[in-house]
Amino acid sequence: MTLTNTDAVATRLLRDQETPSLVLDERLMTANIRRMRERAHALGVQLRPHLKTPKSIDVARRIMDTPEGPATVSTLQEAEQFAQAGVRDILYAVGIAPNKLDRVVALRRQGVDLTIVVDSVEGAQAVAQKSRASGTRIPCLIELDTDGHRAGVAPDQTDRLLAIGRALHEEGAELRGVMTHAGESYNCASTQAIEAMAEQERRGAVACAQALRHAGLPCPVVSVGSTPTALFSRDLSGVTELRAGVFVFFDLFMAGLGVCSQDDIALSVLTTVIGHQEDKGWILVDAGWMAMSRDRGTAKQKVDQYYGVVCDIDGKPYPDLVMRETNQEQGILALRPGSTATLPDLPLGTMVRVLPNHACATGAQHDSYHVIQDDSGRVAAHWPRFRGW
Amino acid sequence: MTLTNTDAVATRLLRDQETPSLVLDERLMTANIRRMRERAHALGVQLRPHLKTPKSIDVARRIMDTPEGPATVSTLQEAEQFAQAGVRDILYAVGIAPNKLDRVVALRRQGVDLTIVVDSVEGAQAVAQKSRASGTRIPCLIELDTDGHRAGVAPDQTDRLLAIGRALHEEGAELRGVMTHAGESYNCASTQAIEAMAEQERRGAVACAQALRHAGLPCPVVSVGSTPTALFSRDLSGVTELRAGVFVFFDLFMAGLGVCSQDDIALSVLTTVIGHQEDKGWILVDAGWMAMSRDRGTAKQKVDQYYGVVCDIDGKPYPDLVMRETNQEQGILALRPGSTATLPDLPLGTMVRVLPNHACATGAQHDSYHVIQDDSGRVAAHWPRFRGW
Repeated sequence: MTLTNTDAVATRLLRDQETPSLVLDERLMTANIRRMRERAHALGVQLRPHLKTPKSIDVARRIMDTPEGPATVSTLQEAEQFAQAGVRDILYAVGIAPNKLDRVVALRRQGVDLTIVVDSVEGAQAVAQKSRASGTRIPCLIELDTDGHRAGVAPDQTDRLLAIGRALHEEGAELRGVMTHAGESYNCASTQAIEAMAEQERRGAVACAQALRHAGLPCPVVSVGSTPTALFSRDLSGVTELRAGVFVFFDLFMAGLGVCSQDDIALSVLTTVIGHQEDKGWILVDAGWMAMSRDRGTAKQKVDQYYGVVCDIDGKPYPDLVMRETNQEQGILALRPGSTATLPDLPLGTMVRVLPNHACATGAQHDSYHVIQDDSGRVAAHWPRFRGW
Repeated sequence: MTLTNTDAVATRLLRDQETPSLVLDERLMTANIRRMRERAHALGVQLRPHLKTPKSIDVARRIMDTPEGPATVSTLQEAEQFAQAGVRDILYAVGIAPNKLDRVVALRRQGVDLTIVVDSVEGAQAVAQKSRASGTRIPCLIELDTDGHRAGVAPDQTDRLLAIGRALHEEGAELRGVMTHAGESYNCASTQAIEAMAEQERRGAVACAQALRHAGLPCPVVSVGSTPTALFSRDLSGVTELRAGVFVFFDLFMAGLGVCSQDDIALSVLTTVIGHQEDKGWILVDAGWMAMSRDRGTAKQKVDQYYGVVCDIDGKPYPDLVMRETNQEQGILALRPGSTATLPDLPLGTMVRVLPNHACATGAQHDSYHVIQDDSGRVAAHWPRFRGW
C-alpha cells in the first residue's frame, strides 16, 4: 500500500493538526468500497466509480478496479488530473459544451479513452464535426432522463434518441451507448421507493439501448447509477456498468435516506472549541460554513442534522449535539431543539469532529485528507485533493 | 495600476474563457469601494476592510488605505498570505484557539502588527501566558456580543468584561480595545431596522469601552461593523474603526436587504449552455453548486433568487430568468414560478453570467478572478485567490 507523504506525518497526532481540517477514516472507507464492489459483483456489472466525490488519486486507486480505471468524472479538470496519474478509461458524465471539445481531443491524443455525453442533435453534430476535424472518433453516450431530474432524453422520446444516435454514428463520432443517473433517488421516502427507482432507471436505459439496436445502431454500453439505486437495485439485467460516487465516504444525507448508517460515515471535519455562550447553551468552534460547506441537505429529511453531527475526536457522537448555525469561520454547537441531553463540557481548545450533510460538498472545501487508520489518534497520511474546472 | 498577469491575457475575451469561471467587473468594484470609503470618511472612522471576501492581494490593495493595511481577516492563512504581500496591520477577527497562538507569535516576529480577539478569561489567560513565554505582548480586542448573534461578551456582562480586560492587561498581553460585529443586521427587514441595529452596535461597543476605561484599563480601539450597519449608520461617535467585507462585490442577498442595487453586484459566474429540456422550460448550464456554492441566502428574503439571477455575457439580466436548481456541475435555468416572461432562446454553447446569493461563498469556490474593466468583452487580468486555513 502506497501512502502519500507518510513519512512526513508518521509521528503526528490528530490532536496536533491545524483546524479546521478534513479527516478520513480509511477503515470505514474500505468497508464502504467493499460493500459497493460486492453489489456490483452480485449484480454482474462493471463498477465505474464517480471520482467527483474524492477528487484524490489516493482515494481513486482504492476504489477503481485497476490503476487505469474505469472511472467517472464530473469535470475535465478531474479527467486531466486522473489522466496524469495514469487513469486511462474515463467517462465525463456531464453534457458536453462544444467549447470543451478541444480539451477532450487533447486527452484522447494522450491515450486516454475518454467518453463524453450528449443529449441533443446539435450536441451530437458538434461532436461529430470535431471528430472529423481531429481525425478521432470521439466516443459518446447518449444521456437519458429516466426520472425527470435533469438533462437527457426521456425513454419515450424515441425519435430524439434515434436522431442523436444517427448524428453520432453516421457523421463521424462513435456511438458507444446510453447512460442515465436517477438523481431523484435522493428524494425517495423509503428503501422500497429506492428499489422501485432503481428498476425505473434500469428499465428506461435498457429500453433505449434496445431502441437504438433495433434501429441498427450500436449500443455496447448501458450505464446507470446513483449511490442509492446502486445499493438497492435487485436486478440489473441489460445493464453493463454501474456508476456511484458518494458511497466511498457516505454522509448524513445518505444516512437519513437509509442507505447507510451514521457509523459508516468516513469523512468528518476536525475543529477546535474557541468559545462559549453559556446562557444560550452554545459552544463555538473554528469550523464555519467555509469548512462544512453551505450544504443543508438534511433540512428536508425526517431528521434535520443542521450543519452536522458532533463527535468527539475519536469519532463517537455526543448525544443530540449538532452544529446549529454557521458563520464563515465559526460554527455554533448546541443540543437539538427539545433535547433532554446534557450539553457536554468542552473547554476552550477541545477538539471535536463533525459529520457532514454532504461528503462531496464538504470535501470540496478542503485541500487534503488527514487519513486515520486505527484508534491510535495518529495521522497516517495526508492525501491531497484538487479542484477547479 | 499594476495588474497581475495582464500580458498573458491581454488579448483574451470573456467568450473564450473556460467555464465555469468567476468574473469581476472592476468598475463596479471601484464604485462600491468608493461608496464605503466615503461612508467611513463622513463618519470620521478608520476603514479596516474585511479581506475574507476577496482573499486576493490584487483586490485587497484596491480596498485598503495603504499597501500595509489596515485589514481584517477571518483565518490565519489569510493573515499569512497578506503578510507575505506586505500587509502589516491585521486584525484576526475570530476568537482565538490556544493552539493557534504559535502562528500568531510567528507573524508578529515577522513584523506584522497582528491583533487577535478573545471573549473569555480562559482565552485571555492563554494569550497572556503565550505573551510572557514569547516575550511579545500580543495585542487583543475583547469581542462583544451586541446583537445575540454569535460569540462575545454582552454589554451588560461588565464583570466578565473587566475580568477579561484585567487578565490581558495585568498578566502580560496588550489590551488594545473592543470589537463587535452586528451579524443580525443581515436579518433586518428594513433600512430603518439596519439603522437601529447600527446604533445598537455602536452604543454597546462604546459602553463597554467606557466601562474598561472607567476601571482604569486601556481601550484605544473601538471596532464595529458589518456591511449593512456600516452603510446605514448615522453616527459613530466613540467608535474608532469600521469593518466591512462583502461591500466590495455586493451580492443578491445584500440587494434583497436594500443595501445595494442589483446593478452594483461586481461578481458573477460565467457559464455555458450545455442542454435544454424544452418541455419543462429548462436550460442547462455547466455551473452547478460547485461553482455557485450551496448558499441560498435569499431563500429567506422577500424575493427568492434561487441559485442566482441570470444575465447575458455583458451582464444584462434576462427578465425573470434564475438558476432554479443545481447539481454538482450542472445548473438548471428557468423562469421564476408564475412569470409571464418568455424563456430566452439560448442555444447550446451560449455563455451567460449568474449573479450570486453570497459573494463570499461563491468567490471561495474559485481560484481566480477574470477581471473586466469595460464593455469590450476583454479580460484585462486574472487575479489569483487563495483559500484554506
